[in-house]
Amino acid sequence: MEKARLEAFSDGVFAVAITLLALDLAVPGPGHGSLAHQLGTHWPSYAAYVVSFFVIGITWVNHHALFRSFAAIDRTVLFLNLTLLLFIVAIPFGTSTMAEYLRHGGSDAHLAAALYAAILEGAAISFVAIFAWSLRDDARRHAPLPPAEARRAIVRFGIGTLVYFGAIVVAFISAPAALAAIALIDVYYMFEQTG
Amino acid sequence: MEKARLEAFSDGVFAVAITLLALDLAVPGPGHGSLAHQLGTHWPSYAAYVVSFFVIGITWVNHHALFRSFAAIDRTVLFLNLTLLLFIVAIPFGTSTMAEYLRHGGSDAHLAAALYAAILEGAAISFVAIFAWSLRDDARRHAPLPPAEARRAIVRFGIGTLVYFGAIVVAFISAPAALAAIALIDVYYMFEQTG
Amino acid sequence: MEKARLEAFSDGVFAVAITLLALDLAVPGPGHGSLAHQLGTHWPSYAAYVVSFFVIGITWVNHHALFRSFAAIDRTVLFLNLTLLLFIVAIPFGTSTMAEYLRHGGSDAHLAAALYAAILEGAAISFVAIFAWSLRDDARRHAPLPPAEARRAIVRFGIGTLVYFGAIVVAFISAPAALAAIALIDVYYMFEQTG
Amino acid sequence: MEKARLEAFSDGVFAVAITLLALDLAVPGPGHGSLAHQLGTHWPSYAAYVVSFFVIGITWVNHHALFRSFAAIDRTVLFLNLTLLLFIVAIPFGTSTMAEYLRHGGSDAHLAAALYAAILEGAAISFVAIFAWSLRDDARRHAPLPPAEARRAIVRFGIGTLVYFGAIVVAFISAPAALAAIALIDVYYMFEQTG
Repeated sequence: MEKARLEAFSDGVFAVAITLLALDLAVPGPGHGSLAHQLGTHWPSYAAYVVSFFVIGITWVNHHALFRSFAAIDRTVLFLNLTLLLFIVAIPFGTSTMAEYLRHGGSDAHLAAALYAAILEGAAISFVAIFAWSLRDDARRHAPLPPAEARRAIVRFGIGTLVYFGAIVVAFISAPAALAAIALIDVYYMFEQTG
Repeated sequence: MEKARLEAFSDGVFAVAITLLALDLAVPGPGHGSLAHQLGTHWPSYAAYVVSFFVIGITWVNHHALFRSFAAIDRTVLFLNLTLLLFIVAIPFGTSTMAEYLRHGGSDAHLAAALYAAILEGAAISFVAIFAWSLRDDARRHAPLPPAEARRAIVRFGIGTLVYFGAIVVAFISAPAALAAIALIDVYYMFEQTG
Repeated sequence: MEKARLEAFSDGVFAVAITLLALDLAVPGPGHGSLAHQLGTHWPSYAAYVVSFFVIGITWVNHHALFRSFAAIDRTVLFLNLTLLLFIVAIPFGTSTMAEYLRHGGSDAHLAAALYAAILEGAAISFVAIFAWSLRDDARRHAPLPPAEARRAIVRFGIGTLVYFGAIVVAFISAPAALAAIALIDVYYMFEQTG
Repeated sequence: MEKARLEAFSDGVFAVAITLLALDLAVPGPGHGSLAHQLGTHWPSYAAYVVSFFVIGITWVNHHALFRSFAAIDRTVLFLNLTLLLFIVAIPFGTSTMAEYLRHGGSDAHLAAALYAAILEGAAISFVAIFAWSLRDDARRHAPLPPAEARRAIVRFGIGTLVYFGAIVVAFISAPAALAAIALIDVYYMFEQTG
C-alpha cells in the first residue's frame, strides 16, 4: 500500500479543514451596528481562527515529518490516520462553537471551550497512537528511532495531550484561559523541533 | 491516460466530501437552550458524522487499493469513477438530511434514512462496476486476479451492496436500525482486508 | 515552470468546485411539508446537479488529456488556465441559481438558465483558447498535432461552444430546453474520444 | 523535510480558498425583485470575485515559481508559509465583507475596503518574508540569485506591498478606488515576469 496517496488524501483533508476555519470570520453585515463595532465584538472568532489555524498547520507539519519516517503503511495505520482526520475535520466546528459562546458570554462558554479542547485532545491522542504504532515494529520505519529521540518525542507528544487535557479542565473555570493555554502549546510546538 | 491524475482528482473529491460532513456538526447556538441540551439532541448528527466519515474513508482506502492494481485506465473507467464520485459527493447531503429527520422524529425519518442508504448503494454499485470493468480484460490489471481472490472480492463487495439495499428496506421499519446496519458494515470493512 | 503543480492546483480547484455542487441538494427540512414532496419539487436541483457534475468532470478529463500533450507551459497558459478555472468555480453558483428559478417558475427562469449557459460558454471559450495557444508553437507540445486530429479537435470544441451559445439563446424561449441541450452535449462528450 | 508535500498542501489551500470566493456570487433569489435587478445590484461581488480570484491565482503562480528555486526548506519557512496561507484563507472573508458594504453603501464601505486591503497586505508581507528567508543563506536556493535579479524581485514585491498599503489609505477616501488600485496591481503582476 503506497504512502503517497495516504499523504495526498491527508494533505487534502488538512487543506480543506484549515480553509473552512475562515467561514467563521464573517460578521453579520450592514444593519447590525457599525462595522468597527461588529469586528470588535467578533474578536474571539479572530483569536480562535489564528489559534486553530496554527493547531491544524502544526499537526500537518508533524504529520508530514512522522509519515516521512515510515517505511511502509498497513491497514491499521490507515484507520488510525482516518481517526486523526475525524478530529481534525471537527476542529472548525469546535472553533466556531467556542468563539460564538465566548462572544455571547454566559456559563455555556465553559462547556464550549471544553468541547473545543476535547476535539484537540482527540486529535492529539490519535497522533500519539500513530506514533506508537510506528515504534512497535522496526520494519515500519526507515530506521529504528534511537531511544533518546523516541524519549524526546514521547515527552513532546505527552506535553500536548496533557495540556489539551488540562485545557478541558481549565475551561470549566475560565474559557479564555483554556484558549490561552492552547495558544501557548501552539507556540511551544512551533519552536520545538520534530525529528 | 495517466492514472496519477485520476487518483489525485479523486483524492481531492474524497477529501472535500469528507470534510463537508463536518458542516452538519454545528448546533443552533446561544438562545436555543443550554449548550449541553443542544449537543444532546444533536446526537444523530454526531452518530451520522462518524458513520459517514468511515464510509467515505473506507471507500477511499478501497479505491486506493483497487486503482493500484490497474495497469491502465480508459475513458470508460474514467466515467465510472465520475459516477462513483457523484454519489460520494452526495453523502454529506444524505447524512445531514437523515440526521435532521432523526432529530425531528416523525414518519419522514424513514424516507430520509432510505435516501441516505440509497446514496450509499449508488456508490457501492459504482464501485462494483469499476471492479467488474477491471476483470473484463487482463491488460487492465498489473496481474490477473487469481480466481480465489476474485471470488473473495465479489463476496466482499456483494455483502456491501446487499447490506445497503437491506438498509433501504429496513429504513421504512426503523430509521435508527438502518443507520446501525450501515455502521456494522463499516466495522466489517475495517477488519476485512482488501487484496 | 513545471506542469505538475499547475495540474495539481487545477485538480484541486476542479475537485472543490465539483463537490460544492452538492450544497444545493439540501431541502428545507422538517416543517416545510412532507420530505417526499420537498424532494419532488427539488427535482431541478437534482437534474442540474447531475448535468453540472458531468460538465465539470468532462472538462477535467479533457483538461487532463490536453495538458498531458503539452511539453512546456508559460505564463500565458498559466493565466488562460486561471481564466478557465474562474468560470469552473462559478458553475455551482450558475447551477444553483438556475435550479432555484426553475423550481420557482416565472419569467426569471429564462435569465437564470441563460446565465448558467453563459458561465459554461465562458469555460468552453477559455478551454479553446488554451488549445489554440498549444497550436501556435510546436515547442509547446510533445509532438505536433497531426492536421487531421487538429481539425477533429477544432470541430469537437467548436460544437461545445456553439451548443452553449445556442443554449443561451434557447434559454429565453425555454429554460428546461436549455438544460436539456447542455445535458445532451454532456452525453456527446462522454462518448466522443479526446486524442 | 521535503518540499513536495509543502507544495501539495499549499496548492490544496490555494485551491479551496479560490473556490470559496464563489460562495459570494449567490443572489437572494426569487421574491427579492427581478433577477436582472439582483444581478445588477450585486456587481461589487462580481468585480471583487474577479479581482480576488486573480490575486489568489497570481500569488499561487508566484508561490510556485519561488518554491521551485528553493533547494531545501526548514521549519522557519514552513511557518512563514503557514502565515502566508493564514492571510490567503482570509481573502474570501475580506472580499465578501467589502462587496457587501459596497453594495449597501454608507460610510462603513471605507473600513470594509481597508480591511480587504489589509488582508492582502498581510499576504504580501508574508510572501516578502519567505523571499527574504531564501536570500539569507545560499544553501536555501538551487543557485544564488544574481544581484540584478534580486533587485528586480525586491522592486516587484516592494511595489505590491506599497500598493496594498496605499489601498488601505485610499479606502478611507474612496472604497471603489481602493478596489481599482488592487485590480491594477493584478494586471501589473500578470504581465510582469517572475524569475
